[in-house]
Amino acid sequence: MRNKVRACEEAGLHSVLERHDASLSQPELLARIDALNADPAVHGILVQMPLPPQIDPARVIEAVALSKDVDGFHLSSAGALVSGRIDGGVGFRPCTPYGVLHMLDDAAVPIRGSRAVVIGRSNTVGKPMALMLLARDATVTIAHSATPDLAAIVREADIVVSAVGRAATVTADMIKPGAAVVDVGINRDAIGRLVGDVDFDRVRDVAGWISPVPGGVGPMTITMLLDNTVLSAERTSTREGSSR
Amino acid sequence: MRNKVRACEEAGLHSVLERHDASLSQPELLARIDALNADPAVHGILVQMPLPPQIDPARVIEAVALSKDVDGFHLSSAGALVSGRIDGGVGFRPCTPYGVLHMLDDAAVPIRGSRAVVIGRSNTVGKPMALMLLARDATVTIAHSATPDLAAIVREADIVVSAVGRAATVTADMIKPGAAVVDVGINRDAIGRLVGDVDFDRVRDVAGWISPVPGGVGPMTITMLLDNTVLSAERTSTREGSSR
Repeated sequence: MRNKVRACEEAGLHSVLERHDASLSQPELLARIDALNADPAVHGILVQMPLPPQIDPARVIEAVALSKDVDGFHLSSAGALVSGRIDGGVGFRPCTPYGVLHMLDDAAVPIRGSRAVVIGRSNTVGKPMALMLLARDATVTIAHSATPDLAAIVREADIVVSAVGRAATVTADMIKPGAAVVDVGINRDAIGRLVGDVDFDRVRDVAGWISPVPGGVGPMTITMLLDNTVLSAERTSTREGSSR
Repeated sequence: MRNKVRACEEAGLHSVLERHDASLSQPELLARIDALNADPAVHGILVQMPLPPQIDPARVIEAVALSKDVDGFHLSSAGALVSGRIDGGVGFRPCTPYGVLHMLDDAAVPIRGSRAVVIGRSNTVGKPMALMLLARDATVTIAHSATPDLAAIVREADIVVSAVGRAATVTADMIKPGAAVVDVGINRDAIGRLVGDVDFDRVRDVAGWISPVPGGVGPMTITMLLDNTVLSAERTSTREGSSR
């Protein structure tokens, strides 16, 4: 959480880190969120997970006002993502897959008409990533732990996004030459180094473009959090302007 | 709408068809929905689309209480589907893709570990269908109008669901022998006959299992609407029981 606050301050966004005791009750936390929901000076609210056992995380996520859900974790944000309604002003995109999309654009990787394979189907990365690539006209396949022949499926892809959390999930023999490979995994290898899901040193020789771990997707997640918060402030000011 | 009411009555569910004049205002419709939301005798509310131009359909869909959204069209229902929370008691599955899942199960088509291709990415069929097959451990590809080589992609599939709305989208040369083919399309052919997206007469010789049009997915959609309504009533009675 501290690096998020620091990133906000560096970008010129005012940011407050509230620390609460682990014994905080659920009603106390919900009351605090209600107060922040009602505070017009606040455009984004993040609740750092995991929460202590006496608190239901789903209940807390839903308590954050949809208009301040800059993490994009709210059920209605997820619904707006599926239904293509975020650009219409409803909810926010989850930051990690949204950051991946920006990385691909920045690297000028063509998305429309491509074949994309997303490995992993988490609510925060895999599924929203697939939906965002689909909205950009990629033909998207979602692979996961029950996929029988992962190598054959990844080999078809022009874009590979791995969000599994297991080192060496994606190896060089699985990559179509020239493909773009994005590594969302963060793992420790046998000697304690931070590594992704992708065998970076070998895959880089086959891939057309590859994101490193660390230093790839991680910083983009925080960037998109700032981006969502600015979007939230802009929406608020548009609403205030139109109601004048 | 009439066939839905009839199906409800035949299944022993009390059902009321309200007809309103096309000049009905949005506030009047929203007030009517509010009254139905508050009525404990009502477990499901369907608003027949399309609505007249003075009414915003998104606004109306969101006005239906999530607990009575048996069409599964609510943003939070869509969010609950993506997030795997419907079986936890939040929202409802959209009826057409849910019906397809039941048809596949009824035909004993293995879903887990299969490769599934969904053609079409609508909010009511394509995307929720893909998410439901994914939740059942299929490796799912979503193809659409911007997919360059549809035939090559469909040929990989053990399960093909077509929800495009164009006759002869799926032809026999695209089908892996033995694959299960589900046809969600409803179209008129050159001589006015009701046909699906699939070239039924030829595909049936290659497929292991195929659903017809008409008489296939259509009746299942209404069945799942009844199923969702019964689920809604069960949830209400569980909540009432536990609050005693």
